[in-house]
Amino acid sequence: MNDTILIVGAGPTGLSAAHGVASLGRKVVLVDKEPLLGGAPILSGYARLVPSGEWAKDAIGRMVARVESAPGVEIHKGARVTAFDGSPGAFVATLSDGARVDAGAVILATGFTHFDAINKPEWGFGTYENVVTTTQVEQMVTAGKIVCPSDGRVPERVAILLCVGSRDRQIGREWCSKICCTVSANLAIEIRELSPKTDVFIYYMDIRTFGLYEDKYYWRSQEEFRTKYVKARVAEVTQGADGRLLLKGEDTLVKRPIVIPMDLVVHAIGMDPNLDNPSIAKVFGVRLEKHGFLDRGEHYTSTFASSRPGVYVGGSALGPEDIDTCVSHGLAMAMRAVGDLHALAHQAA
Amino acid sequence: MNDTILIVGAGPTGLSAAHGVASLGRKVVLVDKEPLLGGAPILSGYARLVPSGEWAKDAIGRMVARVESAPGVEIHKGARVTAFDGSPGAFVATLSDGARVDAGAVILATGFTHFDAINKPEWGFGTYENVVTTTQVEQMVTAGKIVCPSDGRVPERVAILLCVGSRDRQIGREWCSKICCTVSANLAIEIRELSPKTDVFIYYMDIRTFGLYEDKYYWRSQEEFRTKYVKARVAEVTQGADGRLLLKGEDTLVKRPIVIPMDLVVHAIGMDPNLDNPSIAKVFGVRLEKHGFLDRGEHYTSTFASSRPGVYVGGSALGPEDIDTCVSHGLAMAMRAVGDLHALAHQAA
Repeated sequence: MNDTILIVGAGPTGLSAAHGVASLGRKVVLVDKEPLLGGAPILSGYARLVPSGEWAKDAIGRMVARVESAPGVEIHKGARVTAFDGSPGAFVATLSDGARVDAGAVILATGFTHFDAINKPEWGFGTYENVVTTTQVEQMVTAGKIVCPSDGRVPERVAILLCVGSRDRQIGREWCSKICCTVSANLAIEIRELSPKTDVFIYYMDIRTFGLYEDKYYWRSQEEFRTKYVKARVAEVTQGADGRLLLKGEDTLVKRPIVIPMDLVVHAIGMDPNLDNPSIAKVFGVRLEKHGFLDRGEHYTSTFASSRPGVYVGGSALGPEDIDTCVSHGLAMAMRAVGDLHALAHQAA
Repeated sequence: MNDTILIVGAGPTGLSAAHGVASLGRKVVLVDKEPLLGGAPILSGYARLVPSGEWAKDAIGRMVARVESAPGVEIHKGARVTAFDGSPGAFVATLSDGARVDAGAVILATGFTHFDAINKPEWGFGTYENVVTTTQVEQMVTAGKIVCPSDGRVPERVAILLCVGSRDRQIGREWCSKICCTVSANLAIEIRELSPKTDVFIYYMDIRTFGLYEDKYYWRSQEEFRTKYVKARVAEVTQGADGRLLLKGEDTLVKRPIVIPMDLVVHAIGMDPNLDNPSIAKVFGVRLEKHGFLDRGEHYTSTFASSRPGVYVGGSALGPEDIDTCVSHGLAMAMRAVGDLHALAHQAA
């Protein structure tokens, strides 16, 4: 029986899982398709994370450094699993870099893909330079200045549109992306910190700053940072004669049409299933659920099981998820994988 | 060095942690203040759980049975930790049943307390028999019949009031209880399944059916089960001359006062910090955060650390949490506790 754990994906979930397994002195093979470890927070240049307030490069960077220096962790960057066979305790994977990995269990921490805002064309992304995504504003926060891409000016009025690629049946995204409300409230605070004269408006259907995020982000963004929340249906984003953006729609609280000038419009983009999921499902022989995320089994005594024994799945591969939960899923899957292999060895002995 | 793990609390979090540790053949001492294991889902008689749809007594019952039959798990029911001392690898706890526990690490899975609806008196709980809590309706679902407590009749009109003891600064509950929206949508479906002629109304500020709960609960409860969602500020619940309840407030979408007759009013009660938290903090020497939940440390490379080394905290002890997340926190804490003890033993050797 082989007790190496193969972990696919080196974002917060995979890094956490790798640390968990390695902390028991067990062997890990960690594979990521990108040349850089850290997943979305690093690759997309997130700024300060919710809810710690730590910079992503520090927080996730620390997770990366710990795994890179752990004895017993073999890392394959820029590599994919191209073939996979076997059963619990005796899996064999072939990687795109030619390596063969023998493993007792597999953890799929393959994450999500950011919604591409070009698929919501009426809201102006891809048409107007000053319509950007939350990810781009995170990068501006990291750079220390909020600007309009068209001319570099500091925007007087910023609109953050929630649910871009979420809760939207028209474009086949029925799910809520869970963390965009809180991320947007945090971003509104960061914009006001960098640029206290900029007015920030958040256009929403429901504000979902669940749990302790309620007062930390929703209330604080309103009371300390004067963010204006507007319950609205946004119909379209166009450009006025003066070159400013125009946000058109209906304020659903006052039931009136609105046409509001804005300097910068920010799409709070949702979390799609990883674009690679169909091939991941095929290579590993696991099922997808109806939206295209990886499917999971029983929730209580066999949580994080995929549809294939010995293959575990967690984090944002299961659906939209926040980083804290991803970190906990990684450790939990490490526990499950190591525990199940222990039971298997015991049975065999 | 002692490598037994002491786990305090045998709800979903503690049971999951106990299984994790035991799955490696390590010793666990599991302590719960109640005579029954299973935590809130068992003690409060939850019906079908979100999102699995499994009955709580089956799902959590399976977790209990597995831990009770695991070799190496010593269980103390109806017991509390009354004294605690030591350091990682060498803690000593004294239990109220007189036992002494030597442990290398401690997992606090001490959970929450349901908000007592009597503390929101203007909404009628404690005054009118037909004002009940979600927990009481869960018990009706388990019993197979939805009734008005006053006379046993099947209600024609049921109102579920969200945010009872949540998002309410007036009564010192600033947090959102995270899962009540989804639990209430699920309950609306269950009421309609048992009593198809009953009209169900949900009065809300924001609907927070995050992630994949959006279409599974919010949309389905509206489209398949005709639940009516009303965005409103509820001012008070009183009784009319005919003995029916009257819900008074303002519909915040149409901006009009409302006075609506109801047969049954259900308080979707929130999650308070465990009432025992001040004494838990004192006995274990750990900090509370500002709302009274247990405080936690760094989120990325030392997640689930409390303010005392070797003592871990997770689940709804940290704040309002859903059962799936509690189960994952339990396994994650097991991984952390066992991993940190492994490192400690390695250092010592």
